[in-house]
Amino acid sequence: MAIIEISIVPLGHGSTGISHYVAGCLQELDKYGKDVRYELTPMGTIIEGDLDTILALARRMHEVPFQKGAQRVLTTLRIDDRRDRDTSMEQKKRSVRDKL
Amino acid sequence: MAIIEISIVPLGHGSTGISHYVAGCLQELDKYGKDVRYELTPMGTIIEGDLDTILALARRMHEVPFQKGAQRVLTTLRIDDRRDRDTSMEQKKRSVRDKL
Amino acid sequence: MAIIEISIVPLGHGSTGISHYVAGCLQELDKYGKDVRYELTPMGTIIEGDLDTILALARRMHEVPFQKGAQRVLTTLRIDDRRDRDTSMEQKKRSVRDKL
Amino acid sequence: MAIIEISIVPLGHGSTGISHYVAGCLQELDKYGKDVRYELTPMGTIIEGDLDTILALARRMHEVPFQKGAQRVLTTLRIDDRRDRDTSMEQKKRSVRDKL
Repeated sequence: MAIIEISIVPLGHGSTGISHYVAGCLQELDKYGKDVRYELTPMGTIIEGDLDTILALARRMHEVPFQKGAQRVLTTLRIDDRRDRDTSMEQKKRSVRDKL
Repeated sequence: MAIIEISIVPLGHGSTGISHYVAGCLQELDKYGKDVRYELTPMGTIIEGDLDTILALARRMHEVPFQKGAQRVLTTLRIDDRRDRDTSMEQKKRSVRDKL
Repeated sequence: MAIIEISIVPLGHGSTGISHYVAGCLQELDKYGKDVRYELTPMGTIIEGDLDTILALARRMHEVPFQKGAQRVLTTLRIDDRRDRDTSMEQKKRSVRDKL
Repeated sequence: MAIIEISIVPLGHGSTGISHYVAGCLQELDKYGKDVRYELTPMGTIIEGDLDTILALARRMHEVPFQKGAQRVLTTLRIDDRRDRDTSMEQKKRSVRDKL
């Protein structure tokens, strides 16, 4: 199980707002129903799951702004891949809170 | 008002877990009480506020792992600075959800 | 043609230096010979090519620290995917320099 | 001595090209003459120096697109701060190459 954060920014869009594109990316995720666990944050979308599965999802999300007309897209992916024990989005936050 | 995401990683630490350091960084934020609005995510901490104020906080958070003994720290900051209208962490998420 | 930057950080390594891991990642790239164009920078490796090809390479590079014994790896990928015209690492730098 | 990478992206700009903004950011750096060592890469600008000095420079670079009319700017900063021994942009690359 890995966790990735993805942030997708279309360029050449005349408006400062890009939530329309982000919503499209989430609709792509929602096609997979309950099989995909994700969390929308103010700075991106965090997804947990098998690494190759969630990287394939990230690849699809990256395509969404192009389908909506963008000609250039900057995507940032941050991968946290831990193999010494199970991890999850919730567990990571709990682990910090337990130490506060 | 700007929004930043900060992720702090100490290197040279013998263990794979780093939540102890993250907790220390949040304690640094908590010193400022209710004046600082932040959100812990599975991949970092998101802070909203006046840009120079929150950058100064990020600078203090970056120092925490050194105080705990780290000798090398990698910090990633992502800044979203919007000046055409007010923004907030909550408003950004709502703006996406409204389009779903 | 797209350009990606990849930065790979193993955690739980007792030493502050990680160039041994970075070198292993570049050896993975070098297996593909002259077909892959990349540039080592002080903060990561930048690769240009067909997006799916270079993402597959990034995926292999991410695996290298695990093969060397790491149990947790943080990888950051930044993708610049431009489809309105050809781009390259060299062209991007030249475009900035021409305006100086 | 620390090393930072900065990448600055204006939003709401009607064109896909942003090298005009990047050039402006480098001109800001060049005001400091030979005191600042930096390297332009295809994905950002890497600066080495005293951490607080280069963070102050990054803060000025972030302001440049606003001065040129942008209303929203996304800036990514990656900080590599090593205190167990001297480091430099050149040394980091050499350290990897020595292991190849």
